[in-house]
Amino acid sequence: MSPSGTQMATEMAEQPDVLRRLVTRRDEIRALLTTVAPDPLRGMVLVARGSSDNAAVYGRYVLEHALRVPVALAAPSLQTRYDVTPDLDGFVVIAVSQSGATPEIVETTRRLADGGGRTVAITNVAGSPLADAVDAAVLLDAGEEQAVPATKTFTAQVAAFALIAETLTATPPWPREAWEQAIDAVDAVLDTPAEVDGVAATLAGVDHLILVGRGFLYGTALEAGLKIAETTGLGVRGYSPADLQHGPIASATERTHVLCFCTPGPTARDVAEAASDLAERGATVVAVAPDPTCVPTVDSRIPVPAGTVEQLAGLPQVVRAQQLALATAQRRGIDPDAPFSLTKVTRTR
Amino acid sequence: MSPSGTQMATEMAEQPDVLRRLVTRRDEIRALLTTVAPDPLRGMVLVARGSSDNAAVYGRYVLEHALRVPVALAAPSLQTRYDVTPDLDGFVVIAVSQSGATPEIVETTRRLADGGGRTVAITNVAGSPLADAVDAAVLLDAGEEQAVPATKTFTAQVAAFALIAETLTATPPWPREAWEQAIDAVDAVLDTPAEVDGVAATLAGVDHLILVGRGFLYGTALEAGLKIAETTGLGVRGYSPADLQHGPIASATERTHVLCFCTPGPTARDVAEAASDLAERGATVVAVAPDPTCVPTVDSRIPVPAGTVEQLAGLPQVVRAQQLALATAQRRGIDPDAPFSLTKVTRTR
Repeated sequence: MSPSGTQMATEMAEQPDVLRRLVTRRDEIRALLTTVAPDPLRGMVLVARGSSDNAAVYGRYVLEHALRVPVALAAPSLQTRYDVTPDLDGFVVIAVSQSGATPEIVETTRRLADGGGRTVAITNVAGSPLADAVDAAVLLDAGEEQAVPATKTFTAQVAAFALIAETLTATPPWPREAWEQAIDAVDAVLDTPAEVDGVAATLAGVDHLILVGRGFLYGTALEAGLKIAETTGLGVRGYSPADLQHGPIASATERTHVLCFCTPGPTARDVAEAASDLAERGATVVAVAPDPTCVPTVDSRIPVPAGTVEQLAGLPQVVRAQQLALATAQRRGIDPDAPFSLTKVTRTR
Repeated sequence: MSPSGTQMATEMAEQPDVLRRLVTRRDEIRALLTTVAPDPLRGMVLVARGSSDNAAVYGRYVLEHALRVPVALAAPSLQTRYDVTPDLDGFVVIAVSQSGATPEIVETTRRLADGGGRTVAITNVAGSPLADAVDAAVLLDAGEEQAVPATKTFTAQVAAFALIAETLTATPPWPREAWEQAIDAVDAVLDTPAEVDGVAATLAGVDHLILVGRGFLYGTALEAGLKIAETTGLGVRGYSPADLQHGPIASATERTHVLCFCTPGPTARDVAEAASDLAERGATVVAVAPDPTCVPTVDSRIPVPAGTVEQLAGLPQVVRAQQLALATAQRRGIDPDAPFSLTKVTRTR
């Protein structure tokens, strides 16, 4: 079954071009950020919801790793419901919203600016309320996104966070050619959608799914969970291996399916151990990984190209999750472009 | 069915005494904290996993609300796997662990201290590795906790965060008598376990459950989800109403049950709206709330005493969730004290 012919598939296919355009704008992004960032930079606060929040979870890792300052995720109700204006002298606030139109993201960002934070938006819509509210807007230039499940804007947000991290550090966190390799890997994944077919056929009949990722791939696991929840109606969620061990692993049985996101690096062993513990409880474990040694105990593997630098490995891996979400939705007879009465712009406050 | 005769029930019953003892130590806690906190205080980082992490989510709200400084939740793998030492000059780091023995919590806290953070532990075990690693330890003095699902140490951790917030602010965030009222409410809840019986009978046969809470009750919803997951094996999770709207609400159908935690205040309307949206999708919605007007559209309500100050309302409400977890486990024939091969001390790294 070919999951084409949908808006979601069309937008997924645009991802390599969107990413290549964004990376060529590195100097523009550097110029924007260096005018905004205070010196010394004391910390960062990220503001987001939904898929953008999963990109922000990635941002939290890549920024704290590169910049060695504390990075917090905002709790918007403190600003929108309790009028809290924290003292953010020396902080950069990065707000992420595809549409730039979610009221609580705009209001939270304004209030954090009142507290002294310098503000940056990562958004796809120039002239949006969010783009207009901040000191500097990093426009994703991904083209209009119509399908409810964010795909090209999610990978563009991830890339934007990585570029901001690159831009604000004196020592580059990865070699320049890492981008080309990572985007080629996205291309290779998009060229081989049939690699997810076997797992999608299984997932179409599953009612309990757990997703696992750690470190730079934790946001990938969260986004994979949200994508599959949005397009299939399964009540799924991503976990870090450590969070899973502290209770939620209790829900794993022989009816459970698991998707592990893994790449060679310091957290690979943790993911492999979680996979092994879940398999012991009877779960069927699938790895999204570049090679079979990364998670040795799994039942099957969805391949991604080898050699992607760890901090950018989430780009090709999350595209595998998009393919899975799309293929599973279609097998379940669900329209992936506008599933379950969800709307493209979520107007939470 | 009376859910007594278990270690979990015994430990739950101790909560009012534990809380009363802790509150009488306010001056001791103030003295501890004022010696540790830098002046000016620039921000805080909280380190925790599992139930302690849900207490930390509450801590994030009560501290940022009272102190008006940014509060972040640590991402431990950055410290334990990637050796990141962020610059935490002017920050207080609060690590939370019942046992004080989870290796990743101790190691993360040590590394954040290397970055200049002043460190505080909230733990139940004097002389534990965590208590010994920090500048000041707030000991919960809750007595040994043997049941795997944390109950008395969770409410004690919540109270400890509230006392730290109270201690570090010039203007008290609530009247002194609010504590007595909140702990009396916990007593009243413990005296009326039969109030959860009807919902527990339903939950024993449910396979999709969503929990909702916002602001000071977001951590309550997360902890309720973890407690019910641990003791029933249901794959459940708590959401804020805003997070729910950004995708996960897609999983709600007429087979879904919802537990909403609500108390009068600025976020009550958000929870009521989420309840209404979930009901429209066919879900059965139960409110844990002090009065019927708080969430008007629900199918049934588990009562808690009225009049608890909003910031402490999670104490009696989470005890309702503990009662539900215990009663549902027993109806499912699960031993709540040591369910699903979970261990009391989770040795994640």
